Amino acid sequence: MALSGLPGIGKKTALRLAVHLTQDKNQKALKIAQALIRLHEDIKTCTLCHNISDEDTCEVCRMSSRKRSLICVVENVRDVMAIEDTNQYRGLYHVLGGVISPLEGVGPADLNIDTLVERATNGETEEIIMAISPTIEGETTIYYVSKLLQTTGVKVSVIARGISFGGDLEYADEVTLGRSIMARLPYQNET
Amino acid sequence: MALSGLPGIGKKTALRLAVHLTQDKNQKALKIAQALIRLHEDIKTCTLCHNISDEDTCEVCRMSSRKRSLICVVENVRDVMAIEDTNQYRGLYHVLGGVISPLEGVGPADLNIDTLVERATNGETEEIIMAISPTIEGETTIYYVSKLLQTTGVKVSVIARGISFGGDLEYADEVTLGRSIMARLPYQNET
Repeated sequence: MALSGLPGIGKKTALRLAVHLTQDKNQKALKIAQALIRLHEDIKTCTLCHNISDEDTCEVCRMSSRKRSLICVVENVRDVMAIEDTNQYRGLYHVLGGVISPLEGVGPADLNIDTLVERATNGETEEIIMAISPTIEGETTIYYVSKLLQTTGVKVSVIARGISFGGDLEYADEVTLGRSIMARLPYQNET
Repeated sequence: MALSGLPGIGKKTALRLAVHLTQDKNQKALKIAQALIRLHEDIKTCTLCHNISDEDTCEVCRMSSRKRSLICVVENVRDVMAIEDTNQYRGLYHVLGGVISPLEGVGPADLNIDTLVERATNGETEEIIMAISPTIEGETTIYYVSKLLQTTGVKVSVIARGISFGGDLEYADEVTLGRSIMARLPYQNET
């Protein structure tokens, strides 16, 4: 059954869904099918940043209010959504499509790195922010990409890593706590 | 029953413990009582840093290998333990004994701030690291204490705050994610 291939849906749930759809009077099955066909046909990938889009370039890339000199490099489309939800960032994005992971057979060639280097040298880019999760694979990817970007002369920065805001020191994991102390910063009154 | 006043121990558990102790053949009750008396009599507070101690000054303050020019300010004794567990920090501590919280009636006078200012001006202190949880009360405390310390000329720093190491960007809370991007740092190859 095709439904059971979806994440979080096993054989039993798939069967329950299928039975529900066969007994439904409102043509729900047909509506879902049409929506899925539209999804399949209409959703494209932004030619600039590889974000999902309904046109050639995505909504963020089309916005005139965005700072075009700033590119935030993320792992996937969900990260773009998470960062957009914060309402803090006003630049553009670049979706890598994953992180370098030899164990899972993902190498640099499988990621959207060429297009990032191209964008870095397009004359309008001033800063590239690496907003990649601070895992081992993430750090490897940050290292690899920033090495490549070094030659372009663009400023490369990383998001702050440490104790979460609102979090309790006592419950932080040892690595984060240890590194937060080592990576301490001069205190600046933010007022 | 005295036992039920302990955290995590309710009436029923207290009763079960009490019954267990009355039926025990190994004088467990007596041993616990003696241990508690020793605890009551022997555990002192370090006169220097307010950490728990068995002598006038605590184990950390007595260690000759510690960098005496560096003081890490924490909220409570559990934070000292958490930081010691990381095996990263080689300086001294200062236990505030809480954070400023008007809602809970905790003001600056209730905390060990006077002794911190004293230590800051003792001639050997060069840097004071504020390792306080980044909550609203914590930030208020950091602000208050660092204002006081400004006059002493000692360098005041804060632990790094941001996305946890090993953590996934996607699951970070909005505030942390937003601030981590705003508080980004120039990338430095750590190799």
